[in-house]
Amino acid sequence: MRLSRYFLPLLKETPTDAQIVSHQLMLRAGLVRQTSAGIYAWLPVGLRVLNKIADLVRREQDRAGAIELLMPTIQSADLWRQSGRYDAYGPEMLRFKDRHEREMLYGPTNEEMITALFRDSVRSYRDLPRTLYHIQWKFRDEVRPRFGVMRGREFLMKDAYSFDLDEAGGKVSYNAMFEAYLRTFAAMGLKAVPVRAPTGPIGGDMSHEFHILAETGESEIFYDSAIEDVDVTDPEAVSKLSSIYAMEAEEHEKVTNCPVPAERLLSRRGIEVGHIFFFGTKYSASMGLSVQGQDGKPVTPQMGSYGIGVSRLVGAVIEACHDEDGIIWPEAIAPFKVGLINLRSGDAACDVAADDLYAKLQHAGIETLYDDRDERGGAKFAGMDLIGIPWQLVVGPKGVSAGVVELKHRKTGERHELSVDAALEKLGG
Amino acid sequence: MRLSRYFLPLLKETPTDAQIVSHQLMLRAGLVRQTSAGIYAWLPVGLRVLNKIADLVRREQDRAGAIELLMPTIQSADLWRQSGRYDAYGPEMLRFKDRHEREMLYGPTNEEMITALFRDSVRSYRDLPRTLYHIQWKFRDEVRPRFGVMRGREFLMKDAYSFDLDEAGGKVSYNAMFEAYLRTFAAMGLKAVPVRAPTGPIGGDMSHEFHILAETGESEIFYDSAIEDVDVTDPEAVSKLSSIYAMEAEEHEKVTNCPVPAERLLSRRGIEVGHIFFFGTKYSASMGLSVQGQDGKPVTPQMGSYGIGVSRLVGAVIEACHDEDGIIWPEAIAPFKVGLINLRSGDAACDVAADDLYAKLQHAGIETLYDDRDERGGAKFAGMDLIGIPWQLVVGPKGVSAGVVELKHRKTGERHELSVDAALEKLGG
Repeated sequence: MRLSRYFLPLLKETPTDAQIVSHQLMLRAGLVRQTSAGIYAWLPVGLRVLNKIADLVRREQDRAGAIELLMPTIQSADLWRQSGRYDAYGPEMLRFKDRHEREMLYGPTNEEMITALFRDSVRSYRDLPRTLYHIQWKFRDEVRPRFGVMRGREFLMKDAYSFDLDEAGGKVSYNAMFEAYLRTFAAMGLKAVPVRAPTGPIGGDMSHEFHILAETGESEIFYDSAIEDVDVTDPEAVSKLSSIYAMEAEEHEKVTNCPVPAERLLSRRGIEVGHIFFFGTKYSASMGLSVQGQDGKPVTPQMGSYGIGVSRLVGAVIEACHDEDGIIWPEAIAPFKVGLINLRSGDAACDVAADDLYAKLQHAGIETLYDDRDERGGAKFAGMDLIGIPWQLVVGPKGVSAGVVELKHRKTGERHELSVDAALEKLGG
Repeated sequence: MRLSRYFLPLLKETPTDAQIVSHQLMLRAGLVRQTSAGIYAWLPVGLRVLNKIADLVRREQDRAGAIELLMPTIQSADLWRQSGRYDAYGPEMLRFKDRHEREMLYGPTNEEMITALFRDSVRSYRDLPRTLYHIQWKFRDEVRPRFGVMRGREFLMKDAYSFDLDEAGGKVSYNAMFEAYLRTFAAMGLKAVPVRAPTGPIGGDMSHEFHILAETGESEIFYDSAIEDVDVTDPEAVSKLSSIYAMEAEEHEKVTNCPVPAERLLSRRGIEVGHIFFFGTKYSASMGLSVQGQDGKPVTPQMGSYGIGVSRLVGAVIEACHDEDGIIWPEAIAPFKVGLINLRSGDAACDVAADDLYAKLQHAGIETLYDDRDERGGAKFAGMDLIGIPWQLVVGPKGVSAGVVELKHRKTGERHELSVDAALEKLGG
């Protein structure tokens, strides 16, 4: 993408209304703009990151055997009355009436709707087990939306729902999602700690939150350092991790006999980016979901639900991955892999060399943001650092004479001069 | 995808509440389920089609140089007061108050929001021209939602917005979108007729609707048969098509001296799937969008907006492409390319042969729905016909002994027996 034809409004000043670093950087790097309190438009670079995260989430959901569908954002109040949650849910639920005075709401989550869809579609034990998921915008009318997309009102969530014939099957489905979550966060280059969680208003028997570690994290978690030794690709990772102590501070304080020796008990700050629940028949029973079992008798399926905050992750990753110059995207979710800088736009030799290199990068399928604007080199470097593109390729007059380009790694700051061919090879072209 | 593990609830009966064939077929083939009046959940097969259409639309928008971003679904009433449309818009606008009693709405379109975003981001003539687009859910509170996704309340739309420094530039942008639309519908295997349209509530000087021809179409259009001779890949296609007569019946009736000779004037039924507008400074002027021109003086940009009904297209395509047995998907947007039928699940030789063929299709990257269920062959054939997958591959006991499979083309009904290798080659593996 040529920056001269793109839509990437950077801010020079740190916006005063943004309190946390991810919010500041998302505004400065032109990822989002607030359009109402807690509601954001995703500008082109921000959307690229959001889509990459959604795609990674989708890939691991699919790999775990979950099936994607898409439920609408608007739901009827009647649906929520079937589960009894309409009155129980607080003012975070955005409620309104349509033109015919029917009570509607903007879905904050989809347990009711998926239970109704499944109930009206399946009859037999042969239709189970199934895990269904969607990636859709939700709305929670937070009283004080803040921290940018980390606690916005309209947000993108992946929510999956499992249906099993018995509790043992339900736990298999739960563990499959647990594993998918470990893989998902690892694929993003993040360390996520699964924390045993109280089940809260969704109800149920078993629940884990997944926290990304970041010094600026909103919550404090206590965990056994043994967690850090577990390899998430180990087939036993889920069973190991779910037996190692990890709690949010609030829960940890209630524990009178913490089983972890003091020297192994770590305290770190974390950001919740995923939450999984097993809640048995809470919704299936209240909403009349039943299938015919293998013996001909009715069975009430066991359910779980599994959320990942897709838009929240964009902010959480930035909290975990930045420095004083800007964002440092993990390569798997970077908006572009390479930022190509023409140090002297307008200089014929530099223009030819940079255009040629851009063409080669495109031909090799390497996603490149090409700063071809008539701007000072310093502004171009600062821009690429701010946006956080993993690799910067610099074409300047000296290098062009010498037949070399400079390759800078955003994360380490390492710079190397090398030939165009060597640079392309290093970048996987 | 193995059907035994999928979520594809087919209906045997035609739902009595569905009046038009696309709605009936979308319900019967398990593409969607209504969750409230005019609001649908997209089941897995329906979502695959919706995503393929969105991807084709996106490809042609990108090719035309438009830049993707994503605006939120919920907007503030204040934004619409800036353009004066808040009071002008009818009860189709879903309005509500949030917990702080602020007036909000579910966006039916985004002229105001994109104008505000652009206004707050750009300063200079160097930032123009730009065409920005997003693919996002919209809501229009239709008084009588009907015809399934063809006139739903929550619907997916691609809407693009162009910003130019002068009217001539604005018309270049308009024509680039016109061409993108021709390419988009052609890529879906559809014949779309561009019809000169009144500009209506969006306002402006120039507008075209794009209609897909279908006998069951909602509107009648009159056009010069010369339209059918224009090749959409011709670089002159846009200028040719915009100078050939085509009108909706309502407008045609107002024309006193139709310039088309009677023998060339065709009347056909069509379904509107796209609509483009050029409206000059209507929004930029009212909302205070201005940039510094090359001569230092302020310029009020010229704008256009360009919509495609992505979810509506799913229904429209079915209206245009079906027979008495079900849907006939154009290959470019089919949910799967191949439907693999194991005629005798449970028969060891058939199971081995079908599993092996499925593995080969997957290895070749051919999207396949594999009916591996323990069902009669007749039900499997009927299901594949109903879902409308372009190619059916049939593995049966006789064929397995003879070393052949049967390949059926859904559209023509042609059947051939051929070797597995020949079938794979024919299917592009």
